[in-house]
Amino acid sequence: MMHPIRILGIDPGLRRTGWGLIEAMGNRLVFLASGTVTSDNRLDLAERLRQLHDGLLDVIARHEPQEAAVELTFVNKDAGATLKLGQARGVAMLVPALHGLKVAEYAPNLVKKTVVGTGHAEKEQIRMMVKVLMPKASFNSDDAADALAIAVCHAQHRGTPQSRLAEAGAGAR
Amino acid sequence: MMHPIRILGIDPGLRRTGWGLIEAMGNRLVFLASGTVTSDNRLDLAERLRQLHDGLLDVIARHEPQEAAVELTFVNKDAGATLKLGQARGVAMLVPALHGLKVAEYAPNLVKKTVVGTGHAEKEQIRMMVKVLMPKASFNSDDAADALAIAVCHAQHRGTPQSRLAEAGAGAR
Repeated sequence: MMHPIRILGIDPGLRRTGWGLIEAMGNRLVFLASGTVTSDNRLDLAERLRQLHDGLLDVIARHEPQEAAVELTFVNKDAGATLKLGQARGVAMLVPALHGLKVAEYAPNLVKKTVVGTGHAEKEQIRMMVKVLMPKASFNSDDAADALAIAVCHAQHRGTPQSRLAEAGAGAR
Repeated sequence: MMHPIRILGIDPGLRRTGWGLIEAMGNRLVFLASGTVTSDNRLDLAERLRQLHDGLLDVIARHEPQEAAVELTFVNKDAGATLKLGQARGVAMLVPALHGLKVAEYAPNLVKKTVVGTGHAEKEQIRMMVKVLMPKASFNSDDAADALAIAVCHAQHRGTPQSRLAEAGAGAR
C-alpha cells in the first residue's frame, strides 16, 4: 500500500528563502502551503542566518514534512555572492537535517526539466506549470514558486540516483 | 573594573572547522582550549553540516564562550568550492548566534596583521606567534591555530569598527 509523503522544497537565499510544501502519493501531487522567509539586511550576518533558521524551524514545526529537497543554486556573479548564498544554503540544509529529515539536492536544470519539460525554462513558465500541476497552489514570491517546483522534482525523483546527482556534481564545477 | 571575556574563534571549513577558545582581559590573553570539528565526506551534505553543528554546539556547551569571531575566508578556486565553504561558514556563524553570542567577522589579512604584524603571513608564522602570545597554547591542526588567531584578533578589535569591516567588505568583492 502506498503512503502519502509530505515534502518540503526550499529555494535558499540570504535575503529571501522560499519554501513550498506538497503531499505526493505516486503521481498525485497536492499543494499544502508555501511562503517566504526573509532576513533583515540591516542586521549582522549571524543574526540574519538566525532569522532564516527560525523561519524554517517554524515551517517544519507547523507542517511536519517527512523529507526535504533544496536546489543546488549557483551564482556565478562573484565569489562574495556565492559565499552569501552558500551561507543561506548551509542553514537551509541544516534545519531539516537537525529534525531528522533526509535532505535531497537537485540541480536547477533538473528541477526545470522535471516541472516544465526543458532545462532552460523561465521563471514565468515554472510558476505556470506549478499551477497546472497543482491548481490550488498559491505563492507570494518567485522563491516560493521555485521551492514548490523543487518539491515536485523531489516527488518525481526521490529514491532514484538523480536525487544524489547534484551533490556529486557540485565538486566538479 | 575590567572583566575577563571568553572568546571563541572559528575557522570554518566543510571538511575541518577549527575552533580556539581564549580568555582576554585587556591585553592579557590566556589560552583555554582548541580543537577541530570534522565532517565525514562519505555522508550527505546535510548530514555533514549537522556534524559541524553538533561539534560546535558541544564546544559552546562545554566552554560557554561569551563572544564569537569567524574568519571571512575566501576561496577563489571555483564557485563550487566557495559554495561549500559558505555552507560550512553559515553553520559556523549560526550555532553561536542561536546561543545568544555576538558573532564578529574578520578578513584574513586583518587577522594576520593583528597576530603577526603583516597581512601576508604564512601559516607557520601564525602558529609561531600564537605560541608567543599564549605560551600554553596547543592545537591539533592549522585550522585550530587559525581559530586561535581569529580569537586573538577579536580580543584586539572587539568593540571597534574593524569588527564590522569584514561583512561590509564581503559584498564588494
